[in-house]
Amino acid sequence: MSNQIEESQQQSPDSTENHQCNDDGDFVDPWTVTSSSQSGPDYDKLIARFGSARVTDDLLKRFESALPAGTKLHHFLRRGIFFSHRDLEPILNKIEKGEKFFLYTGRGPSSASLHVGHLIPFIFTKWLQDTFDVPLVIQLTDDEKFLWRGLKIEEVKKHALENIKDIIACGFDVKKTFIFTDTDYISKSRAFYENILKIQRLVTFNQVKGIFGFGDSDCIGKIAFPAIQAAPSFSTSFPQIFGTGSKCQLCLIPCAIDQDPYFRMTRDVAPKLKYPKPSLLHSTFLPALGGAMSKMSASDANNSIFLTDTANQIKNKINKYAFSGGGGSVEEHREKGGNCDVDVSYQYLRYFLDDDDHLEQIRCDYSSGKMLTGEIKKEIITVLQELVAKHQQARKEITTEIVEQFMTPRELNFVNTSTTTTTTK
Amino acid sequence: MSNQIEESQQQSPDSTENHQCNDDGDFVDPWTVTSSSQSGPDYDKLIARFGSARVTDDLLKRFESALPAGTKLHHFLRRGIFFSHRDLEPILNKIEKGEKFFLYTGRGPSSASLHVGHLIPFIFTKWLQDTFDVPLVIQLTDDEKFLWRGLKIEEVKKHALENIKDIIACGFDVKKTFIFTDTDYISKSRAFYENILKIQRLVTFNQVKGIFGFGDSDCIGKIAFPAIQAAPSFSTSFPQIFGTGSKCQLCLIPCAIDQDPYFRMTRDVAPKLKYPKPSLLHSTFLPALGGAMSKMSASDANNSIFLTDTANQIKNKINKYAFSGGGGSVEEHREKGGNCDVDVSYQYLRYFLDDDDHLEQIRCDYSSGKMLTGEIKKEIITVLQELVAKHQQARKEITTEIVEQFMTPRELNFVNTSTTTTTTK
Repeated sequence: MSNQIEESQQQSPDSTENHQCNDDGDFVDPWTVTSSSQSGPDYDKLIARFGSARVTDDLLKRFESALPAGTKLHHFLRRGIFFSHRDLEPILNKIEKGEKFFLYTGRGPSSASLHVGHLIPFIFTKWLQDTFDVPLVIQLTDDEKFLWRGLKIEEVKKHALENIKDIIACGFDVKKTFIFTDTDYISKSRAFYENILKIQRLVTFNQVKGIFGFGDSDCIGKIAFPAIQAAPSFSTSFPQIFGTGSKCQLCLIPCAIDQDPYFRMTRDVAPKLKYPKPSLLHSTFLPALGGAMSKMSASDANNSIFLTDTANQIKNKINKYAFSGGGGSVEEHREKGGNCDVDVSYQYLRYFLDDDDHLEQIRCDYSSGKMLTGEIKKEIITVLQELVAKHQQARKEITTEIVEQFMTPRELNFVNTSTTTTTTK
Repeated sequence: MSNQIEESQQQSPDSTENHQCNDDGDFVDPWTVTSSSQSGPDYDKLIARFGSARVTDDLLKRFESALPAGTKLHHFLRRGIFFSHRDLEPILNKIEKGEKFFLYTGRGPSSASLHVGHLIPFIFTKWLQDTFDVPLVIQLTDDEKFLWRGLKIEEVKKHALENIKDIIACGFDVKKTFIFTDTDYISKSRAFYENILKIQRLVTFNQVKGIFGFGDSDCIGKIAFPAIQAAPSFSTSFPQIFGTGSKCQLCLIPCAIDQDPYFRMTRDVAPKLKYPKPSLLHSTFLPALGGAMSKMSASDANNSIFLTDTANQIKNKINKYAFSGGGGSVEEHREKGGNCDVDVSYQYLRYFLDDDDHLEQIRCDYSSGKMLTGEIKKEIITVLQELVAKHQQARKEITTEIVEQFMTPRELNFVNTSTTTTTTK
């Protein structure tokens, strides 16, 4: 592990400077994402500012050859939706050697309803779990949402439970997945609280001021919170899963890039704790219906497609609100073609239409003007209606008992793919 | 309860200003107590600066008449050792009406060995518990000592367990007492963590900067910690003791006055949480052997009498190190007499010799020069040898099972003194 830490230090130096990057009209931090450009944030500049690395074609090739036979690279990787990373190489080393690692992702339960943008990390994480047969921990930061929003603690806890049902409905394997809310797991696990304390001792107010932009008038709960999102990056926070006193396992965190500040901080403290730095795979933001100047947000109903929306609501929202890259008139559109870079329907198709050939056909037809705005909207309406209906069907099956199973700290079963030996620990 | 909050607001306004008071050569905060005067800090000025209230003779008279028949006011009260308070009146109201309240005190487990100064709050708290038959919670802030000192988490946990044995040896009733370490109880009790979060949301960095003198280079763990010492002031942190969803009980906190900043902060947030403000009784500091310019400290062996010291060590330390208020020579002493205000042996007798007549005799004889330094030292040596021997005997009986009993969150049994009705809840 120590070699790998050094390696990671060489590759992508982390720092505790403020990278919120509010020049160029793009602003990205864990609470706010805005862009002055209709095509969304400049992700190359984000990579440069955050100090992460581009997921290159070479890396994708290596990733692809590490896949089990018959498995295709997920379209989120093929299409640059998970576009940035930190230390993906050590994870690929593990995969190639048939060694273990674990996945960690999460959700801040600010509302009871998820929108389709919230599915991105979960869809991708499920694919990683299925493909590599690895354990997964999912954190619901109910304490964070309590601290940041004016909500009652009972409200965030209720939101978290609703969100967990949606997350489970994504199809995670209960034998390999532990889902927890902070208020529940902190009050169950001494190991977790002790890791939080260890991180809190290593991070100063100056550092969180730099990383997160906290100020003197912020409450002390916010100031200390980043340690709570950091702690699940270390497998020692989960003795029931990984064994008491066991070596800290390597962690891969799939998340939207706005969460990177937490893990820059985590990677800074990891060597001081003699823990491996977590690796990251960062996604872009799903644009709001109104366009990529903001990401989809649960607080703006007409700018988002919710997992609770009816087929009719989806149709109406897309038709009414989805920003179009098409021409001002049919004639103009036929002549000049549509702009896929800013067209929200096309952008959503990139996220949710798995069929590459179909997507490419749409791109050609829309760019050339052969396909009209109403037609591309019809394509994404169909895709989203199917996605949401399938999700709603799956969610219906999620009982309180199933939620409790996922939320019980316990030994997980995972099979090491390369050796097919059961390596429960 | 709301009446009482308003009442307390009128009586002793709390504030979040910095009252560490480093003018006049006295410095008092939860981590450092020093004075430029041989007789110790100017406690009247401390009261004025902290905004607390003097324990007046009138208040003591009221306290005395509230005592059960046959009970005498504790000599810590009679002699002004618990000299300052915040809102003692609402507690006396409760006592007079035969209503419930609870006690909360604590210890920061910075070392495995306690000195006799550490006993002060525990001796007094035990008297309060015995006299008023009320439940008591005792907090061991192992997380605080982990965050402040360069100690490993295992070390502070070990210290805490040793300290708990000493605390139990003070004679607390297991049926009425819950003792906990933060790392243990936070990872057991969701109610406690939720109260911590509620407090953390209401306190800004600016406020803890003002109250505790924290700076930008302090770690985020320190900055958030005050909420953890505040939370046990609210009975809702202990649903197993006080019942789930029960009304927040009134709390009395006996502690040395250096801990007041934590509870000033607590009292500021209490009304916002609709909880009653905790009441406080503040003690003076037991002087170090070298004199009252510093308080007894576990980190300076020759300046302290430890609970592990042998009779011989006690004798030698007092004879060698106890600062004397006597004359420079026997002749000078006989002529001018000794100065009890600075004489450490006399000061210790004030704390540890219960017999008022005997103490007064010593004071007269020593002040007049009739009693020599060697003789007053002999008096305190005998008292401390007995105290420590008795403590060591009691501590021998404290098994791991007894510790576990005290540390189990559970229903406590307490009898309401005025009605002698069992009011377990």
